[in-house]
Amino acid sequence: MDIELERNERIDDLQLKGLKIIQNKDFFCFGMDAVLLSAYAYVRRDDLVADLGTGTGIIPLLLSGRTQAARIVGVEIQQQVAQMAKRSVKLNDIDDRIEIINYDIKKIQDVLEKASFDAVVSNPPYKPVGRGKINPNKAKAISKHEIECTIQDTIKAADYLLKPGGRFYIVYRPDRMVDALYCMRNMRIEPKRMKMVHSFVSKPPKLVLIEGVKHSKPDFKLECPLYIYKDDGEYTEDIINIYQKGEQL
Amino acid sequence: MDIELERNERIDDLQLKGLKIIQNKDFFCFGMDAVLLSAYAYVRRDDLVADLGTGTGIIPLLLSGRTQAARIVGVEIQQQVAQMAKRSVKLNDIDDRIEIINYDIKKIQDVLEKASFDAVVSNPPYKPVGRGKINPNKAKAISKHEIECTIQDTIKAADYLLKPGGRFYIVYRPDRMVDALYCMRNMRIEPKRMKMVHSFVSKPPKLVLIEGVKHSKPDFKLECPLYIYKDDGEYTEDIINIYQKGEQL
Repeated sequence: MDIELERNERIDDLQLKGLKIIQNKDFFCFGMDAVLLSAYAYVRRDDLVADLGTGTGIIPLLLSGRTQAARIVGVEIQQQVAQMAKRSVKLNDIDDRIEIINYDIKKIQDVLEKASFDAVVSNPPYKPVGRGKINPNKAKAISKHEIECTIQDTIKAADYLLKPGGRFYIVYRPDRMVDALYCMRNMRIEPKRMKMVHSFVSKPPKLVLIEGVKHSKPDFKLECPLYIYKDDGEYTEDIINIYQKGEQL
Repeated sequence: MDIELERNERIDDLQLKGLKIIQNKDFFCFGMDAVLLSAYAYVRRDDLVADLGTGTGIIPLLLSGRTQAARIVGVEIQQQVAQMAKRSVKLNDIDDRIEIINYDIKKIQDVLEKASFDAVVSNPPYKPVGRGKINPNKAKAISKHEIECTIQDTIKAADYLLKPGGRFYIVYRPDRMVDALYCMRNMRIEPKRMKMVHSFVSKPPKLVLIEGVKHSKPDFKLECPLYIYKDDGEYTEDIINIYQKGEQL
Protein backbone atom coordinates (compact mmCIF):
# COMPACT_ATOMS: atom_id res chain seq x y z
CA MET A 1 0.00 0.00 0.00
CA ASP A 2 1.46 3.34 -1.04
CA ILE A 3 0.90 5.96 1.66
CA GLU A 4 2.09 9.55 1.49
CA LEU A 5 4.01 10.83 4.51
CA GLU A 6 3.81 14.43 5.62
CA ARG A 7 6.61 16.55 7.11
CA ASN A 8 8.30 15.02 10.19
CA GLU A 9 6.38 11.78 9.80
CA ARG A 10 8.01 8.37 9.83
CA ILE A 11 6.84 4.77 9.61
CA ASP A 12 7.69 2.54 12.59
CA ASP A 13 7.52 -1.24 12.65
CA LEU A 14 5.44 -2.55 15.57
CA GLN A 15 7.31 -5.90 15.60
CA LEU A 16 3.94 -7.60 15.68
CA LYS A 17 2.60 -9.53 12.67
CA GLY A 18 4.18 -7.04 10.28
CA LEU A 19 2.09 -4.13 11.59
CA LYS A 20 3.40 -0.61 11.03
CA ILE A 21 2.43 2.82 12.37
CA ILE A 22 2.87 6.36 11.12
CA GLN A 23 4.24 8.64 13.84
CA ASN A 24 5.33 12.29 13.90
CA LYS A 25 7.86 13.65 16.34
CA ASP A 26 5.75 16.80 16.74
CA PHE A 27 2.93 14.72 18.24
CA PHE A 28 2.70 12.23 21.04
CA CYS A 29 4.57 9.05 20.11
CA PHE A 30 3.42 5.82 21.70
CA GLY A 31 5.28 4.33 24.61
CA MET A 32 5.15 1.35 26.87
CA ASP A 33 1.76 2.54 28.23
CA ALA A 34 0.00 1.52 25.04
CA VAL A 35 1.76 -1.84 24.80
CA LEU A 36 0.95 -2.74 28.41
CA LEU A 37 -2.67 -1.66 28.06
CA SER A 38 -3.11 -3.80 24.96
CA ALA A 39 -1.59 -6.73 26.90
CA TYR A 40 -3.84 -6.12 29.93
CA ALA A 41 -7.14 -5.80 28.08
CA TYR A 42 -9.03 -9.06 27.86
CA VAL A 43 -10.58 -9.13 24.38
CA ARG A 44 -12.46 -12.15 23.09
CA ARG A 45 -12.97 -13.45 19.58
CA ASP A 46 -15.51 -11.32 17.69
CA ASP A 47 -15.60 -8.58 20.36
CA LEU A 48 -16.44 -5.02 19.40
CA VAL A 49 -13.87 -2.72 21.06
CA ALA A 50 -13.55 1.07 21.34
CA ASP A 51 -10.41 3.08 22.12
CA LEU A 52 -11.13 6.52 23.56
CA GLY A 53 -8.52 9.11 22.60
CA THR A 54 -6.78 6.79 20.18
CA GLY A 55 -4.12 9.28 19.02
CA THR A 56 -2.20 7.76 16.12
CA GLY A 57 -4.16 4.53 16.51
CA ILE A 58 -1.47 2.54 18.27
CA ILE A 59 -3.85 0.67 20.57
CA PRO A 60 -6.29 -0.44 17.83
CA LEU A 61 -3.28 -1.57 15.77
CA LEU A 62 -1.79 -3.56 18.66
CA LEU A 63 -5.18 -5.08 19.56
CA SER A 64 -5.77 -6.05 15.94
CA GLY A 65 -2.53 -8.05 16.05
CA ARG A 66 -2.87 -9.43 19.57
CA THR A 67 -6.57 -10.37 19.67
CA GLN A 68 -9.37 -11.73 17.53
CA ALA A 69 -11.61 -8.71 18.05
CA ALA A 70 -14.08 -8.35 15.19
CA ARG A 71 -13.73 -4.60 15.04
CA ILE A 72 -11.88 -1.86 16.90
CA VAL A 73 -13.10 1.74 16.73
CA GLY A 74 -10.63 4.47 17.71
CA VAL A 75 -11.99 7.93 18.51
CA GLU A 76 -9.66 10.93 18.33
CA ILE A 77 -10.54 14.62 18.69
CA GLN A 78 -7.49 16.06 16.90
CA GLN A 79 -8.03 16.12 13.16
CA GLN A 80 -4.40 15.89 12.04
CA VAL A 81 -3.65 13.05 14.47
CA ALA A 82 -6.81 11.16 13.46
CA GLN A 83 -5.71 11.56 9.82
CA MET A 84 -2.40 9.89 10.62
CA ALA A 85 -4.24 7.05 12.34
CA LYS A 86 -6.46 6.62 9.28
CA ARG A 87 -3.43 6.45 7.01
CA SER A 88 -1.81 3.86 9.34
CA VAL A 89 -4.95 1.74 9.04
CA LYS A 90 -4.68 1.98 5.23
CA LEU A 91 -0.94 1.26 5.34
CA ASN A 92 -1.69 -2.00 7.14
CA ASP A 93 -4.64 -2.74 4.87
CA ILE A 94 -6.81 -3.40 7.88
CA ASP A 95 -9.87 -1.21 7.19
CA ASP A 96 -12.08 -4.24 7.71
CA ARG A 97 -11.15 -4.42 11.41
CA ILE A 98 -10.18 -0.85 12.46
CA GLU A 99 -12.21 2.30 12.06
CA ILE A 100 -10.91 5.74 13.11
CA ILE A 101 -13.45 8.43 13.95
CA ASN A 102 -12.37 12.06 14.24
CA TYR A 103 -14.74 13.22 16.96
CA ASP A 104 -15.05 14.51 20.52
CA ILE A 105 -15.72 11.69 23.01
CA LYS A 106 -17.81 14.12 25.08
CA LYS A 107 -20.37 13.89 22.26
CA ILE A 108 -19.89 10.19 21.58
CA GLN A 109 -23.67 9.64 21.39
CA ASP A 110 -23.65 11.52 18.02
CA VAL A 111 -21.54 8.88 16.33
CA LEU A 112 -21.75 5.53 18.15
CA GLU A 113 -24.58 3.40 19.45
CA LYS A 114 -25.30 3.09 23.16
CA ALA A 115 -24.44 -0.17 24.99
CA SER A 116 -23.02 -1.72 21.83
CA PHE A 117 -19.40 -2.44 22.83
CA ASP A 118 -17.91 -5.47 24.59
CA ALA A 119 -14.79 -3.65 25.73
CA VAL A 120 -13.54 -0.07 25.91
CA VAL A 121 -9.89 0.84 26.39
CA SER A 122 -8.22 4.19 27.03
CA ASN A 123 -4.83 5.76 27.68
CA PRO A 124 -6.21 9.18 28.58
CA PRO A 125 -4.40 12.42 29.39
CA TYR A 126 -3.37 12.16 33.04
CA LYS A 127 -2.53 15.67 34.17
CA PRO A 128 -5.32 17.92 35.46
CA VAL A 129 -5.21 21.40 33.99
CA GLY A 130 -3.42 23.56 36.55
CA ARG A 131 -0.88 20.93 37.50
CA GLY A 132 2.45 20.95 35.67
CA LYS A 133 3.55 23.09 32.74
CA ILE A 134 1.35 22.80 29.66
CA ASN A 135 3.34 21.79 26.58
CA PRO A 136 3.46 24.72 24.08
CA ASN A 137 2.95 22.10 21.33
CA LYS A 138 -0.84 21.90 21.33
CA ALA A 139 -1.09 18.32 20.10
CA LYS A 140 1.28 17.07 22.80
CA ALA A 141 -0.49 19.20 25.43
CA ILE A 142 -3.87 17.65 24.55
CA SER A 143 -2.49 14.14 24.93
CA LYS A 144 -0.95 14.88 28.36
CA HIS A 145 -3.23 17.45 30.02
CA GLU A 146 -6.99 17.23 30.53
CA ILE A 147 -7.61 20.07 28.09
CA GLU A 148 -10.17 18.42 25.83
CA CYS A 149 -11.13 15.52 28.05
CA THR A 150 -11.12 14.77 31.78
CA ILE A 151 -11.11 11.35 33.44
CA GLN A 152 -14.84 11.87 34.09
CA ASP A 153 -15.43 12.45 30.35
CA THR A 154 -13.54 9.26 29.48
CA ILE A 155 -15.41 7.09 31.98
CA LYS A 156 -18.76 8.63 31.05
CA ALA A 157 -18.13 7.81 27.39
CA ALA A 158 -17.07 4.26 28.33
CA ASP A 159 -20.26 3.85 30.36
CA TYR A 160 -22.32 5.00 27.37
CA LEU A 161 -20.62 2.61 24.96
CA LEU A 162 -20.38 -0.55 27.07
CA LYS A 163 -22.95 -3.31 27.25
CA PRO A 164 -23.82 -4.34 30.82
CA GLY A 165 -21.02 -6.71 31.81
CA GLY A 166 -18.73 -5.02 29.31
CA ARG A 167 -15.10 -4.43 30.29
CA PHE A 168 -13.23 -1.16 30.65
CA TYR A 169 -9.41 -0.92 30.65
CA ILE A 170 -7.34 2.08 31.48
CA VAL A 171 -3.62 2.75 31.85
CA TYR A 172 -3.07 5.65 34.19
CA ARG A 173 -0.66 7.36 36.58
CA PRO A 174 -0.59 6.29 40.23
CA ASP A 175 -1.15 9.87 41.42
CA ARG A 176 -4.54 9.91 39.62
CA MET A 177 -5.51 6.37 40.61
CA VAL A 178 -8.01 7.43 43.27
CA ASP A 179 -9.75 9.73 40.76
CA ALA A 180 -10.16 6.86 38.30
CA LEU A 181 -11.38 4.33 40.88
CA TYR A 182 -13.77 6.83 42.49
CA CYS A 183 -15.24 7.90 39.18
CA MET A 184 -15.57 4.32 37.93
CA ARG A 185 -17.54 3.25 40.99
CA ASN A 186 -19.70 6.37 40.78
CA MET A 187 -20.57 5.53 37.16
CA ARG A 188 -21.11 1.85 38.04
CA ILE A 189 -18.13 0.59 36.09
CA GLU A 190 -16.93 -1.36 39.10
CA PRO A 191 -13.14 -1.71 39.50
CA LYS A 192 -12.36 -5.44 39.43
CA ARG A 193 -8.61 -5.74 39.21
CA MET A 194 -5.55 -3.55 39.18
CA LYS A 195 -1.89 -4.10 38.42
CA MET A 196 0.91 -1.80 39.46
CA VAL A 197 3.80 -1.34 37.04
CA HIS A 198 7.19 -0.56 38.61
CA SER A 199 10.36 0.29 36.67
CA PHE A 200 12.40 -1.49 39.38
CA VAL A 201 11.43 -3.59 42.42
CA SER A 202 12.74 -0.88 44.73
CA LYS A 203 10.87 2.00 43.06
CA PRO A 204 7.29 3.23 43.52
CA PRO A 205 4.84 2.22 40.77
CA LYS A 206 4.95 4.44 37.68
CA LEU A 207 1.81 3.15 35.98
CA VAL A 208 -1.39 1.42 37.02
CA LEU A 209 -3.55 -0.82 34.85
CA ILE A 210 -7.20 -1.06 35.91
CA GLU A 211 -10.03 -3.31 34.75
CA GLY A 212 -13.64 -2.34 35.45
CA VAL A 213 -16.84 -4.18 34.61
CA LYS A 214 -20.07 -2.31 33.92
CA HIS A 215 -22.81 -2.95 36.49
CA SER A 216 -20.75 -5.61 38.28
CA LYS A 217 -20.72 -6.08 42.06
CA PRO A 218 -17.70 -4.97 44.13
CA ASP A 219 -15.09 -7.74 44.12
CA PHE A 220 -11.65 -6.30 43.70
CA LYS A 221 -8.28 -7.93 43.21
CA LEU A 222 -4.91 -6.26 43.47
CA GLU A 223 -2.61 -8.33 41.31
CA CYS A 224 1.05 -9.20 41.37
CA PRO A 225 2.98 -6.14 40.16
CA LEU A 226 4.80 -5.99 36.86
CA TYR A 227 8.46 -5.00 37.08
CA ILE A 228 9.98 -3.59 33.89
CA TYR A 229 13.71 -3.84 34.61
CA LYS A 230 15.83 -6.25 36.57
CA ASP A 231 18.43 -4.88 38.99
CA ASP A 232 21.06 -5.05 36.22
CA GLY A 233 18.95 -2.76 34.00
CA GLU A 234 17.90 -5.49 31.54
CA TYR A 235 14.21 -6.07 30.77
CA THR A 236 12.48 -8.63 32.97
CA GLU A 237 11.22 -11.85 31.44
CA ASP A 238 7.62 -10.59 31.84
CA ILE A 239 8.34 -7.59 29.61
CA ILE A 240 10.17 -9.70 27.04
CA ASN A 241 7.22 -12.11 26.92
CA ILE A 242 4.77 -9.26 26.35
CA TYR A 243 6.83 -7.68 23.57
CA GLN A 244 8.25 -10.74 21.85
CA LYS A 245 5.63 -13.41 22.44
CA GLY A 246 2.54 -11.19 22.63
CA GLU A 247 1.70 -12.63 26.06
CA GLN A 248 -1.21 -11.30 28.07
CA LEU A 249 -0.79 -9.61 31.45
CA MET B 1 2.10 -3.44 88.96
CA ASP B 2 0.20 -6.58 89.97
CA ILE B 3 -2.47 -7.48 87.43
CA GLU B 4 -4.76 -10.49 87.62
CA LEU B 5 -4.90 -12.69 84.54
CA GLU B 6 -8.07 -14.55 83.56
CA ARG B 7 -8.34 -17.99 81.96
CA ASN B 8 -6.33 -18.39 78.73
CA GLU B 9 -4.71 -15.00 79.14
CA ARG B 10 -0.99 -14.40 78.88
CA ILE B 11 1.34 -11.42 79.06
CA ASP B 12 3.46 -10.76 75.96
CA ASP B 13 6.47 -8.47 75.76
CA LEU B 14 6.18 -5.89 72.95
CA GLN B 15 9.99 -5.55 72.68
CA LEU B 16 9.48 -1.79 72.78
CA LYS B 17 10.52 0.27 75.79
CA GLY B 18 9.54 -2.51 78.18
CA LEU B 19 5.87 -2.39 77.11
CA LYS B 20 3.74 -5.49 77.69
CA ILE B 21 0.29 -6.57 76.54
CA ILE B 22 -2.30 -8.99 77.88
CA GLN B 23 -3.60 -11.31 75.15
CA ASN B 24 -5.99 -14.25 75.13
CA LYS B 25 -5.84 -17.01 72.57
CA ASP B 26 -9.66 -17.05 72.44
CA PHE B 27 -9.65 -13.51 71.07
CA PHE B 28 -7.91 -11.81 68.20
CA CYS B 29 -4.18 -11.57 68.90
CA PHE B 30 -2.27 -8.74 67.29
CA GLY B 31 -0.18 -9.31 64.23
CA MET B 32 2.06 -7.44 61.90
CA ASP B 33 -0.92 -5.28 60.81
CA ALA B 34 -0.85 -3.36 64.08
CA VAL B 35 2.92 -2.91 64.07
CA LEU B 36 2.96 -1.62 60.48
CA LEU B 37 0.05 0.74 61.13
CA SER B 38 1.79 2.20 64.16
CA ALA B 39 4.91 2.67 62.03
CA TYR B 40 2.95 4.30 59.18
CA ALA B 41 0.94 6.78 61.27
CA TYR B 42 2.56 10.17 61.48
CA VAL B 43 1.97 11.35 65.05
CA ARG B 44 3.50 14.58 66.36
CA ARG B 45 4.53 15.59 69.85
CA ASP B 46 1.46 16.42 71.98
CA ASP B 47 -1.03 15.02 69.43
CA LEU B 48 -4.36 13.67 70.57
CA VAL B 49 -4.93 10.30 68.83
CA ALA B 50 -7.89 7.91 68.65
CA ASP B 51 -7.81 4.21 67.74
CA LEU B 52 -11.16 2.90 66.48
CA GLY B 53 -11.76 -0.75 67.35
CA THR B 54 -8.69 -0.95 69.54
CA GLY B 55 -9.17 -4.59 70.61
CA THR B 56 -6.65 -5.41 73.32
CA GLY B 57 -5.11 -1.95 72.95
CA ILE B 58 -2.09 -2.99 70.94
CA ILE B 59 -2.03 0.13 68.75
CA PRO B 60 -2.31 2.67 71.62
CA LEU B 61 0.47 0.76 73.42
CA LEU B 62 2.74 0.76 70.36
CA LEU B 63 2.01 4.43 69.64
CA SER B 64 2.74 5.35 73.26
CA GLY B 65 6.19 3.81 72.85
CA ARG B 66 6.90 5.03 69.32
CA THR B 67 5.58 8.58 69.45
CA GLN B 68 5.27 11.57 71.71
CA ALA B 69 1.48 11.74 71.45
CA ALA B 70 0.00 13.46 74.48
CA ARG B 71 -2.89 11.05 74.74
CA ILE B 72 -4.23 8.03 72.86
CA VAL B 73 -7.86 6.99 73.22
CA GLY B 74 -8.79 3.45 72.21
CA VAL B 75 -12.46 2.63 71.61
CA GLU B 76 -13.61 -0.99 71.73
CA ILE B 77 -17.15 -2.35 71.57
CA GLN B 78 -16.52 -5.74 73.21
CA GLN B 79 -16.61 -5.47 76.98
CA GLN B 80 -14.31 -8.35 77.82
CA VAL B 81 -11.71 -7.28 75.25
CA ALA B 82 -11.86 -3.66 76.42
CA GLN B 83 -11.32 -4.91 79.98
CA MET B 84 -8.14 -6.67 78.89
CA ALA B 85 -6.96 -3.48 77.21
CA LYS B 86 -7.64 -1.52 80.40
CA ARG B 87 -5.63 -4.01 82.42
CA SER B 88 -2.76 -3.80 79.92
CA VAL B 89 -2.75 -0.02 80.35
CA LYS B 90 -2.54 -0.51 84.12
CA LEU B 91 0.15 -3.19 83.73
CA ASN B 92 2.29 -0.65 81.87
CA ASP B 93 1.39 2.12 84.33
CA ILE B 94 0.50 4.38 81.43
CA ASP B 95 -2.98 5.65 82.41
CA ASP B 96 -1.75 9.20 81.94
CA ARG B 97 -1.34 8.67 78.18
CA ILE B 98 -3.79 5.91 77.20
CA GLU B 99 -7.51 5.76 77.85
CA ILE B 100 -9.67 2.78 76.84
CA ILE B 101 -13.38 3.39 76.28
CA ASN B 102 -15.78 0.44 76.02
CA TYR B 103 -18.26 1.84 73.54
CA ASP B 104 -19.75 1.49 70.05
CA ILE B 105 -17.97 3.74 67.52
CA LYS B 106 -21.29 4.14 65.68
CA LYS B 107 -22.35 6.30 68.66
CA ILE B 108 -18.99 7.97 69.18
CA GLN B 109 -20.65 11.38 69.61
CA ASP B 110 -21.95 10.18 73.00
CA VAL B 111 -18.47 9.88 74.48
CA LEU B 112 -15.96 12.01 72.56
CA GLU B 113 -15.89 15.59 71.37
CA LYS B 114 -16.30 16.50 67.70
CA ALA B 115 -13.24 17.72 65.72
CA SER B 116 -10.95 17.31 68.71
CA PHE B 117 -8.38 14.76 67.44
CA ASP B 118 -5.17 15.32 65.49
CA ALA B 119 -5.00 11.75 64.21
CA VAL B 120 -7.26 8.70 64.05
CA VAL B 121 -5.97 5.20 63.36
CA SER B 122 -7.82 1.96 62.73
CA ASN B 123 -7.26 -1.70 61.91
CA PRO B 124 -10.92 -2.46 61.21
CA PRO B 125 -12.61 -5.77 60.41
CA TYR B 126 -12.07 -6.33 56.71
CA LYS B 127 -14.56 -8.98 55.64
CA PRO B 128 -18.07 -7.90 54.61
CA VAL B 129 -20.78 -10.04 56.20
CA GLY B 130 -21.72 -12.64 53.61
CA ARG B 131 -18.18 -13.21 52.38
CA GLY B 132 -16.22 -16.04 53.97
CA LYS B 133 -17.17 -18.26 56.89
CA ILE B 134 -17.95 -16.39 60.10
CA ASN B 135 -15.79 -17.56 63.01
CA PRO B 136 -17.97 -19.42 65.58
CA ASN B 137 -15.91 -17.63 68.26
CA LYS B 138 -17.89 -14.39 68.51
CA ALA B 139 -14.99 -12.20 69.64
CA LYS B 140 -12.81 -13.35 66.74
CA ALA B 141 -15.74 -12.99 64.33
CA ILE B 142 -16.30 -9.36 65.38
CA SER B 143 -12.66 -8.49 64.79
CA LYS B 144 -12.65 -10.05 61.30
CA HIS B 145 -16.14 -9.57 59.89
CA GLU B 146 -18.12 -6.33 59.64
CA ILE B 147 -20.64 -7.52 62.20
CA GLU B 148 -20.58 -4.56 64.57
CA CYS B 149 -18.89 -2.03 62.32
CA THR B 150 -18.51 -1.49 58.56
CA ILE B 151 -15.80 0.52 56.80
CA GLN B 152 -18.38 3.31 56.44
CA ASP B 153 -18.92 3.33 60.21
CA THR B 154 -15.19 3.55 60.85
CA ILE B 155 -14.62 6.41 58.41
CA LYS B 156 -17.72 8.27 59.62
CA ALA B 157 -16.43 8.08 63.20
CA ALA B 158 -12.97 9.25 62.05
CA ASP B 159 -14.58 12.18 60.24
CA TYR B 160 -16.50 13.12 63.40
CA LEU B 161 -13.39 12.99 65.59
CA LEU B 162 -10.80 14.66 63.35
CA LYS B 163 -9.98 18.34 63.26
CA PRO B 164 -9.87 19.77 59.72
CA GLY B 165 -6.40 18.86 58.46
CA GLY B 166 -6.33 15.91 60.85
CA ARG B 167 -4.84 12.63 59.65
CA PHE B 168 -6.49 9.24 59.28
CA TYR B 169 -4.54 5.97 59.03
CA ILE B 170 -5.90 2.59 58.15
CA VAL B 171 -4.37 -0.84 57.57
CA TYR B 172 -6.62 -2.84 55.29
CA ARG B 173 -6.83 -5.70 52.83
CA PRO B 174 -6.16 -5.05 49.14
CA ASP B 175 -9.51 -6.56 48.12
CA ARG B 176 -11.33 -3.85 50.16
CA MET B 177 -9.03 -1.02 49.11
CA VAL B 178 -11.49 0.53 46.66
CA ASP B 179 -14.19 0.58 49.37
CA ALA B 180 -11.90 2.45 51.76
CA LEU B 181 -10.67 4.97 49.16
CA TYR B 182 -14.18 5.59 47.82
CA CYS B 183 -15.68 6.08 51.26
CA MET B 184 -12.82 8.33 52.40
CA ARG B 185 -13.26 10.66 49.43
CA ASN B 186 -17.04 10.66 49.92
CA MET B 187 -16.59 11.73 53.55
CA ARG B 188 -13.92 14.29 52.57
CA ILE B 189 -11.08 12.48 54.27
CA GLU B 190 -9.00 12.71 51.11
CA PRO B 191 -6.61 9.80 50.42
CA LYS B 192 -3.09 11.27 50.31
CA ARG B 193 -0.70 8.35 50.26
CA MET B 194 -0.78 4.59 50.17
CA LYS B 195 1.79 1.85 50.66
CA MET B 196 1.40 -1.73 49.51
CA VAL B 197 2.82 -4.45 51.72
CA HIS B 198 3.98 -7.63 49.97
CA SER B 199 5.19 -10.78 51.70
CA PHE B 200 7.62 -11.34 48.81
CA VAL B 201 8.59 -9.25 45.76
CA SER B 202 6.94 -11.78 43.47
CA LYS B 203 3.62 -11.94 45.38
CA PRO B 204 0.56 -9.67 45.20
CA PRO B 205 0.22 -7.19 48.09
CA LYS B 206 -1.35 -8.66 51.24
CA LEU B 207 -1.94 -5.38 53.09
CA VAL B 208 -2.38 -1.73 52.21
CA LEU B 209 -1.60 1.23 54.44
CA ILE B 210 -3.54 4.41 53.64
CA GLU B 211 -3.22 7.97 54.90
CA GLY B 212 -6.09 10.42 54.48
CA VAL B 213 -6.32 14.07 55.47
CA LYS B 214 -9.63 15.64 56.44
CA HIS B 215 -10.82 18.36 54.04
CA SER B 216 -7.61 18.23 52.02
CA LYS B 217 -7.45 18.62 48.23
CA PRO B 218 -6.81 15.57 46.01
CA ASP B 219 -3.05 15.01 45.75
CA PHE B 220 -2.29 11.33 45.97
CA LYS B 221 1.00 9.47 46.17
CA LEU B 222 1.51 5.75 45.75
CA GLU B 223 4.67 4.96 47.67
CA CYS B 224 7.44 2.43 47.32
CA PRO B 225 6.08 -0.94 48.51
CA LEU B 226 7.22 -2.65 51.68
CA TYR B 227 8.45 -6.21 51.23
CA ILE B 228 8.37 -8.37 54.36
CA TYR B 229 10.63 -11.27 53.39
CA LYS B 230 13.68 -11.59 51.18
CA ASP B 231 13.84 -14.41 48.63
CA ASP B 232 15.64 -16.57 51.21
CA GLY B 233 12.73 -16.22 53.66
CA GLU B 234 14.56 -13.90 56.09
CA TYR B 235 13.02 -10.57 57.09
CA THR B 236 14.00 -7.60 54.93
CA GLU B 237 16.04 -4.79 56.41
CA ASP B 238 12.94 -2.54 56.30
CA ILE B 239 11.04 -4.91 58.59
CA ILE B 240 13.99 -5.31 60.96
CA ASN B 241 14.31 -1.53 61.17
CA ILE B 242 10.63 -1.15 62.04
CA TYR B 243 10.69 -3.83 64.72
CA GLN B 244 14.12 -3.32 66.23
CA LYS B 245 14.80 0.36 65.70
CA GLY B 246 11.22 1.66 65.82
CA GLU B 247 11.70 3.29 62.41
CA GLN B 248 8.81 5.01 60.66
CA LEU B 249 7.44 3.81 57.35
